[in-house]
Amino acid sequence: MTLRIAEVFGPTIQGEGALIGEPTLFVRAGGCDYRCSWCDSPHAVDSRFRQDWTPMEPAEVMARLGALSGGQPMMVSLSGGNPAIQDFAPLIAMGRAKGYRFACETQGSVARDWFAALDMLVLSPKPPSSGETTDWAKFDACLAAAGDAPRVMKIVVFDDADLDYARTAAARHPELSLCLQPGNPESDPDTPVSLDALAARLEWLVDRTIGAGWLRPRILPQLHVLIWGNKRGV
Amino acid sequence: MTLRIAEVFGPTIQGEGALIGEPTLFVRAGGCDYRCSWCDSPHAVDSRFRQDWTPMEPAEVMARLGALSGGQPMMVSLSGGNPAIQDFAPLIAMGRAKGYRFACETQGSVARDWFAALDMLVLSPKPPSSGETTDWAKFDACLAAAGDAPRVMKIVVFDDADLDYARTAAARHPELSLCLQPGNPESDPDTPVSLDALAARLEWLVDRTIGAGWLRPRILPQLHVLIWGNKRGV
Repeated sequence: MTLRIAEVFGPTIQGEGALIGEPTLFVRAGGCDYRCSWCDSPHAVDSRFRQDWTPMEPAEVMARLGALSGGQPMMVSLSGGNPAIQDFAPLIAMGRAKGYRFACETQGSVARDWFAALDMLVLSPKPPSSGETTDWAKFDACLAAAGDAPRVMKIVVFDDADLDYARTAAARHPELSLCLQPGNPESDPDTPVSLDALAARLEWLVDRTIGAGWLRPRILPQLHVLIWGNKRGV
Repeated sequence: MTLRIAEVFGPTIQGEGALIGEPTLFVRAGGCDYRCSWCDSPHAVDSRFRQDWTPMEPAEVMARLGALSGGQPMMVSLSGGNPAIQDFAPLIAMGRAKGYRFACETQGSVARDWFAALDMLVLSPKPPSSGETTDWAKFDACLAAAGDAPRVMKIVVFDDADLDYARTAAARHPELSLCLQPGNPESDPDTPVSLDALAARLEWLVDRTIGAGWLRPRILPQLHVLIWGNKRGV
């Protein structure tokens, strides 16, 4: 089962979500069923970049992960694009046999049996600013597919409409731990990121949640953007 | 048992360590047995500021926490100064009865029975750049006092000597989850923080740990410094 892979990189820190700061290898899958207006990884989504995706067998990906980590087992994040449109079961089985752990980041639009083999399923339903619409039946199917695997929810928030969406999503799933992340309006790797603007967006989100008495979500920025801007492969 | 309290504030985000991003109330205790050269809270340490510390009964602190959170139970961080030089058992008992959870941040120089009542004991032994020396027997007594309470280790790193210390501390305690945090050389609330310098210190620490094949520690910055600089009460 050949995979379409946009990037394999690391070890670096996980920049966002519940595993923020953890040493992580990244496997960025090519291809996505969404076209979010503010996507930060268009090179792994848009079919325009299809020729840059490498066809790789699971064993090749595993060999690359082993080379990158010097053979030390560690956390691997399957991201994209939407990794759920491909079959990562063989890679996960191979990696887990060597002690690697696997997290998967997906919007929750496609349920896969292999979610149950994950160490963490990170579901990131997309708010209105993305231009996409959440099919909650499919989202629930993803949760069900994960079974006993730890499952968390992460929502990117650009504006008040996104925040309303996050509150509704949170209310639908009281059983999930929730991270909110301020949106990054810039995805061009060549455009310098304004750290002041990044800090201001984080402050805005803290004010509008914790500051307004909503005490459930963790509020976390994207550390990789803080350090490296929108550069790829870090 | 009257407490000496430098500040009670929140709700805001926990800016650092394993609970980073979590909505948190802070109780900053006045008084410390250490004098770290780069202390970021001298107003809670130096006896010069003693007249600014408020004597408060545990019930008064609890009432203040309830008012700040609108009565919603949430995470409370006991910090300082070194909170372990005072008796927080009555406050913890009162708060837990109402559903509040308690974390305590301490260098691990003074063991207290009430560590066992915590939801998280965060031990932050101080590296050489602090000018302090770690008494590991006392540190181990703190760990033992916590019993079954979750215990984590967090170490601030300014330079390579601090990093050597962190590796030694980590090797002494393979059972503890470990966060490393780049040092912030500036603690004056009136001096603006350079976000570029903060990002550069984080990148340096990622390079010197994960980038050098040390895959155990989580690497996390201080989010409150990113957002608010060295301002107090946030």
